[in-house]
Amino acid sequence: MKKINIGLVGFGTVGAGLLKILKDKRSLIKEKTGFEFAAKKVCDKDFITRRPIKLDRYIKTKNVNDILNDPDIDVVVELVGGIHPAKEIIINSLAKKKHVVTANKALIAQEGKDIFKAARRYKRNIYFEASVGAGIPIIKTLRESLIANKVDGIFGVINGTSNFVLTRMSEQECSFNSAILDAKKKGFAERNPSLDIDGIDTAHKLLILVYLAFGKLFKMEDIYIEGISKISLADIKFAEELNMVIKLLAIAKKEGVALDVRVHPTMVPKENLLSSVSGIFNAVYINTDLMGDLLLYGQGAGALSAASGVVSDLIDLARDLQSTSNTFSERLFLRKPLLQKLVKISDIQSKYYIRFMAIDKPGVLARISGVLGQYGISISSVTQKGRRRAKIVPIIMLTHEATEKNMRLALERIYKLAVIRDYPVAIRIEKEL
Amino acid sequence: MKKINIGLVGFGTVGAGLLKILKDKRSLIKEKTGFEFAAKKVCDKDFITRRPIKLDRYIKTKNVNDILNDPDIDVVVELVGGIHPAKEIIINSLAKKKHVVTANKALIAQEGKDIFKAARRYKRNIYFEASVGAGIPIIKTLRESLIANKVDGIFGVINGTSNFVLTRMSEQECSFNSAILDAKKKGFAERNPSLDIDGIDTAHKLLILVYLAFGKLFKMEDIYIEGISKISLADIKFAEELNMVIKLLAIAKKEGVALDVRVHPTMVPKENLLSSVSGIFNAVYINTDLMGDLLLYGQGAGALSAASGVVSDLIDLARDLQSTSNTFSERLFLRKPLLQKLVKISDIQSKYYIRFMAIDKPGVLARISGVLGQYGISISSVTQKGRRRAKIVPIIMLTHEATEKNMRLALERIYKLAVIRDYPVAIRIEKEL
Repeated sequence: MKKINIGLVGFGTVGAGLLKILKDKRSLIKEKTGFEFAAKKVCDKDFITRRPIKLDRYIKTKNVNDILNDPDIDVVVELVGGIHPAKEIIINSLAKKKHVVTANKALIAQEGKDIFKAARRYKRNIYFEASVGAGIPIIKTLRESLIANKVDGIFGVINGTSNFVLTRMSEQECSFNSAILDAKKKGFAERNPSLDIDGIDTAHKLLILVYLAFGKLFKMEDIYIEGISKISLADIKFAEELNMVIKLLAIAKKEGVALDVRVHPTMVPKENLLSSVSGIFNAVYINTDLMGDLLLYGQGAGALSAASGVVSDLIDLARDLQSTSNTFSERLFLRKPLLQKLVKISDIQSKYYIRFMAIDKPGVLARISGVLGQYGISISSVTQKGRRRAKIVPIIMLTHEATEKNMRLALERIYKLAVIRDYPVAIRIEKEL
Repeated sequence: MKKINIGLVGFGTVGAGLLKILKDKRSLIKEKTGFEFAAKKVCDKDFITRRPIKLDRYIKTKNVNDILNDPDIDVVVELVGGIHPAKEIIINSLAKKKHVVTANKALIAQEGKDIFKAARRYKRNIYFEASVGAGIPIIKTLRESLIANKVDGIFGVINGTSNFVLTRMSEQECSFNSAILDAKKKGFAERNPSLDIDGIDTAHKLLILVYLAFGKLFKMEDIYIEGISKISLADIKFAEELNMVIKLLAIAKKEGVALDVRVHPTMVPKENLLSSVSGIFNAVYINTDLMGDLLLYGQGAGALSAASGVVSDLIDLARDLQSTSNTFSERLFLRKPLLQKLVKISDIQSKYYIRFMAIDKPGVLARISGVLGQYGISISSVTQKGRRRAKIVPIIMLTHEATEKNMRLALERIYKLAVIRDYPVAIRIEKEL
């Protein structure tokens, strides 16, 4: 029976959930793994706020150095979030020859390079299952189960807040703002939900998945990110009529020797399982050469789900601690990127859903389709919603594949037509789904 | 760089797929894991049949002892299938201090006890990811990612042949027999498909999942197994109208201190993702205390998918080979079962779909519902399909929860009514989905 001492930095909901699991499931974990995990020290600024678990006084500390300098601590679990001081805590932990588990997606996505370099340098491991999809075994699957597979594409619904808002709008037929309010009331959105709603959180997670699948940690500024704040109930309903669902999708797919990586609201056909991922649930589709399509679905948020992912990492670490070799650089990651280049957003090819708000009079359609034609964009279907002679009506168009650059130019031109009100709404339709 | 020598027993489609992957992906695997896998010997009775890979003459053998007695072979991969001689090959491999990877679900389900005992005795590991859902990481997830979770229920569509047949009947509106013929033509059903169609294969896989989740390997004869051969197109269409889909479902759920384990055609509501698992795809739903619902979906059959699962096991084994401790008995399994007792099929509680073929005349419904009432079965809806006075028409009933024993007695009684033709068709509706 081996005892593994944990230093926990960050006693928030996930941290408290983790300690609760380690306590409640102590005998189950012992039974299954032969390991006993003990929180030797817990660091936080605040020990006043009530948590679902009580700590002995002697394990509490407000000084992270009490953890870093404790030679008996084998593993540091970082659950403070954010970039600083999380980055310094992790790098100092590695330097002190401690392994690290973290759920910090922003940190891995933005500062992963320095962190992995430190892990290699100090020959320690870092695990981060809970950084994407909480306890859903997405990272472990990419890292281990798919090890012999070449990944061709990843498509993910990986932000619970955005997905809750879109699902809510659809089910309650309510506005974006009213859905956001609901999400806040239910605790599914933060007071300032922009990280979630604007696609930043989804992009962080996507960069991590891309790193695991393709071996390169791209930068946030190099990928296209568009959030859901402009999605209207009207478009959700028109999508429904077209047998599609609007999802905030994380997309990464091979296009020849380059990689197309982006985050934006996307029309997903109802036949595809991703369209059925509702509310705060998350799912990731992975297309591979050997396995074909694989989907992993579950609760991508929540203290216990995330803590469950952290425990799964701890078990992996415990396994490493028994190993005779330094496994970090050898096992976890590709050492050479499979792909280096990104496809620019202006160069992508996509089918589009477009909604024009136009004056209902003869010749409007001819003018719109005329401009589209000039930019080589061909239309696969058109529907005018309702008849209101000389009033504004929505015109819904689906296009065949077009390049984004041409689409943007065409919409710019069409917007200037006298018969058009509002900037046209364009939503990409994902052809691979 | 560590080299790991494999002895492969069984050079069929999965075996050939495995060797092809190890060859084609040699550098990817090396890059990612630091290990090099080499097939040192391959044993089969037949080397005449063409395979997608050519073997050097000196690695072929028809004598399995050439593998067992080779001290340089670290791992034996058993892909012959069936009980004998697979069981002897595996136990002898373990005795010769070789680790084992197998995809043999029948063997693990039926003879697992002896095999695990041998693994413990000889302190060697046995991995079997590809035995359930081919390369879908179902077993690894139960074993590792969910390690701190208590499983409450497992619901699986885990037989590609049966699922293809049911999907085909629904999509083509064809009979069971015609769908089976299609499946054979496409290579999705064996010449004698009874293992798949009768639910045996599903039951084998379910027993393995139950073993991992609840710690006890139950016997085939102790669980209820019903196949899909009596499912008619009529019932598939009536299910559709009721917003449900008929799936051959593997079910295991906790009922107090006992476990309810069964395999049978089941009505799955369309809201549930399992209803969208079509054709040869597989999926497993796992309900847990920490993670809530988790779904794993993918290609549950096919040479490359299965071989991908075998490679994932090989990587795990390679990891074990670097470990200083004997990990088998300590890590993989529960040593004490969480649950010992099974719920008898006659004692289960379920909602039911029932189709009666009855003469269309006044009073029929009163007689049927009268009998149901005597057995404490209450009806939630009734529809008579069509009107054909004094002729036979189908009557579709949905019931509230009833015990199986009462349902069987009631159907027996109703069948004897003069107004009833054919034995009533009863299909359980899964309330947890």
